Amino acid sequence: MRNPQLNAHGELQHLLTIEGLPREVIVHILDTAGSFVGITERDVKKVPILRGKSVFNLFFENSTRTRTTFEIAAKRLSADVINLNINTSSAAKGESLLDTIDNLSAMHADMFVVRHASSGAPHLIARHVEGHPHLHVVNAGDGRHAHPTQGLLDLYTLRHYKQDFTRLSVAVVGDVLHSRVARSLIHGLTTMGTPDVRVVGPKTLLPEGVEKLGVRVFHDMNEGMKGCDAIVMLRLQNERMKGPLLPSAQEFFKSYGLTAEKLALAKPDAIVMHPGPMNRGVEIDSAVADGPRSVILPQVTFGIAVRMAVMAILAGN
Amino acid sequence: MRNPQLNAHGELQHLLTIEGLPREVIVHILDTAGSFVGITERDVKKVPILRGKSVFNLFFENSTRTRTTFEIAAKRLSADVINLNINTSSAAKGESLLDTIDNLSAMHADMFVVRHASSGAPHLIARHVEGHPHLHVVNAGDGRHAHPTQGLLDLYTLRHYKQDFTRLSVAVVGDVLHSRVARSLIHGLTTMGTPDVRVVGPKTLLPEGVEKLGVRVFHDMNEGMKGCDAIVMLRLQNERMKGPLLPSAQEFFKSYGLTAEKLALAKPDAIVMHPGPMNRGVEIDSAVADGPRSVILPQVTFGIAVRMAVMAILAGN
Amino acid sequence: MRNPQLNAHGELQHLLTIEGLPREVIVHILDTAGSFVGITERDVKKVPILRGKSVFNLFFENSTRTRTTFEIAAKRLSADVINLNINTSSAAKGESLLDTIDNLSAMHADMFVVRHASSGAPHLIARHVEGHPHLHVVNAGDGRHAHPTQGLLDLYTLRHYKQDFTRLSVAVVGDVLHSRVARSLIHGLTTMGTPDVRVVGPKTLLPEGVEKLGVRVFHDMNEGMKGCDAIVMLRLQNERMKGPLLPSAQEFFKSYGLTAEKLALAKPDAIVMHPGPMNRGVEIDSAVADGPRSVILPQVTFGIAVRMAVMAILAGN
Repeated sequence: MRNPQLNAHGELQHLLTIEGLPREVIVHILDTAGSFVGITERDVKKVPILRGKSVFNLFFENSTRTRTTFEIAAKRLSADVINLNINTSSAAKGESLLDTIDNLSAMHADMFVVRHASSGAPHLIARHVEGHPHLHVVNAGDGRHAHPTQGLLDLYTLRHYKQDFTRLSVAVVGDVLHSRVARSLIHGLTTMGTPDVRVVGPKTLLPEGVEKLGVRVFHDMNEGMKGCDAIVMLRLQNERMKGPLLPSAQEFFKSYGLTAEKLALAKPDAIVMHPGPMNRGVEIDSAVADGPRSVILPQVTFGIAVRMAVMAILAGN
Repeated sequence: MRNPQLNAHGELQHLLTIEGLPREVIVHILDTAGSFVGITERDVKKVPILRGKSVFNLFFENSTRTRTTFEIAAKRLSADVINLNINTSSAAKGESLLDTIDNLSAMHADMFVVRHASSGAPHLIARHVEGHPHLHVVNAGDGRHAHPTQGLLDLYTLRHYKQDFTRLSVAVVGDVLHSRVARSLIHGLTTMGTPDVRVVGPKTLLPEGVEKLGVRVFHDMNEGMKGCDAIVMLRLQNERMKGPLLPSAQEFFKSYGLTAEKLALAKPDAIVMHPGPMNRGVEIDSAVADGPRSVILPQVTFGIAVRMAVMAILAGN
Repeated sequence: MRNPQLNAHGELQHLLTIEGLPREVIVHILDTAGSFVGITERDVKKVPILRGKSVFNLFFENSTRTRTTFEIAAKRLSADVINLNINTSSAAKGESLLDTIDNLSAMHADMFVVRHASSGAPHLIARHVEGHPHLHVVNAGDGRHAHPTQGLLDLYTLRHYKQDFTRLSVAVVGDVLHSRVARSLIHGLTTMGTPDVRVVGPKTLLPEGVEKLGVRVFHDMNEGMKGCDAIVMLRLQNERMKGPLLPSAQEFFKSYGLTAEKLALAKPDAIVMHPGPMNRGVEIDSAVADGPRSVILPQVTFGIAVRMAVMAILAGN
């Protein structure tokens, strides 16, 4: 079966998930992003690569933050951007997802950036638009499944600070069970040949059989920190904090919150990452979040460049 | 009394309704739309016709779908587009419709695209801005009154597939009573000289005295289909389905839903149209909606070109 | 202590409040606005001054009207504009104001236009982004504190119609207590050397010790009107009308509503201003609002030019 993300020439047709994405495609995206980092620092932050293209932000699940990053990226590429929050519109009128997609395709859309609460929705859309070779789908987060641009910006950040994936120890800490960010990053790290990927968290927040993804499991965070080059803290969703899986946010912080003390167990030059938005005092201490080893804000900067790269590559294929 | 849609030279000043629009104005819009169809298929879908113009989408009634079509059309003409959902803003602060209009006019707006639940609101606005000859109003749907760009795209579609209006039989089926789409199309068809326009539906969903519009009335859909060149299915609003006018959605489908069986009564090359969004299984069967005689998605494509044409013509007058 | 609005060269770095703004900075803004008035009347209302810049409208408090004026101004300067209504997004996810700001700064934002229900929020943001010299903050209204672009457009309007501030009598009438518009205008008028600034209203709607701002207090509106060159009517917020501070909207209108009768007490060429949106029949009679001495709509026009001027000056510094 052909990889639904690649076209007949093996080039990126859609970005749906990092799982199964060839190593050279990932490297191409990271390299291209590198050239866009320069552009976002210029006085005139605009290139004409997507001029006259129509990019639709289809957010079936509300997320101003993620929508903003894609909107900026597309506008800096000179695209026309249309924002659609679909929960309040056609969906309310009872139109099906695929009828909405057919309609927008008929308007000669060039790209759909899709956020959806259901895992697999972007795949469904990509399969549905197969007859439109100039139409590209970017997954901006689907259910618990994948968040590939976040995974790619995490990879970009790691490469920027640590260069060689094949010598790294990376710990992913917290609510791995509900995290599409974690899943995308783990697939990216293993594809790039990272020898030591760890997941750290309580049993109730780690997926069953997570070891099959090629990671080592730690329930004791102190153990999990030892010798790490990078620590990726995950957001603990507010709704989990009140749920039956956890005793309390305070208890969680004691065991799995990243403090200066726990960070001291990692390598001296270890970097600290977080996809945002942070719960300060829940999964991360402010002293660490704002400390010298935090690269949380550079992640945001690289995120724009990575999204520009993905869009530019798709539009060129 | 002068036609409020035309300026002193008989050119289009506003697009408020198809009723009373001269045949040559309609033909000019359709011809212009034809040239824009080509542009929307190009790699760079952008022309500078509205560069530096400010287009305001004034949606007093929510409609992401229609707003999107105007937003794309305006952006592909290089306009600056400002979206205003007015129910949640000034209206909440108690400002009157005409004070809002005065304000936006004072900001040197060039075009208002108006959607309003009250019939006549766009006319009211057009009359109010008479002192601003460079300001144009486009009706994007007002109450049960008119939806002229939808009517024009329906005409474009009919001309595209059937060429000559003066030889056509067109059936408009379903909830004609509440449909501004139906009203606009019927006026357009009679203006273009269509000899046989039919409305098909139960008594409770046809306006009293609809024959005066120059149409033939059918309560039996099988009769209404016979020999038709085109069938325009209307959306049955969800709120009607539960109302006292109809027994049930299932019953409605049995009598007035378009199935392959009923479609077989029309001419063999008859086309099937629908303004969207569709209620599959209520007014139209999926086999027909997605079948070889459906031109529902081309209607959407032509709709962008028609809206670009209307805006370009207005801005030039 | 250095003025937080000015950079090391004494140039405008942020626009937070008119209080303490040097006279020559105000004059420079008004002069620059004058040149933009011409542009907004041109056929192509667009200049490339902010091309490739990212302007974020950060509205923590909903205001379509004000947001629209900034959005138009920024688009006519060719900026990329991103609208964020923050109450419904990150804030809901529990992210702090300053984390949001850090994030957007990391995306290489160039300008934040901030509206916030809390007085001082724009100052807090300006202080927080001190490390980003290319990032500018514009206060679009904070609590009861300031609304400097409104104050500046009021000054522009006064200068346009009356030329010399040093000979003027200006009355500010109504709910001064809750009005950031009044506060900004009063500071602007005193800075520009206006010898006679009056506040007119009931005790319950005037701030205690308002005389210290250099104004004269009138509780009798007839007295306050005598010999005025300009009358600035303030909006009476709907929530006040039902509150304990006022007997009723009708009573208020009798005492403090601007009627033709009361206006006749001012100078024969006095102008009438209002920041909008108006409560007709509460603080102002329609005959006056729409009468020959009203400059309420020119205020709106000048408001776009003033906002363009502020943004252009900030981006150039």
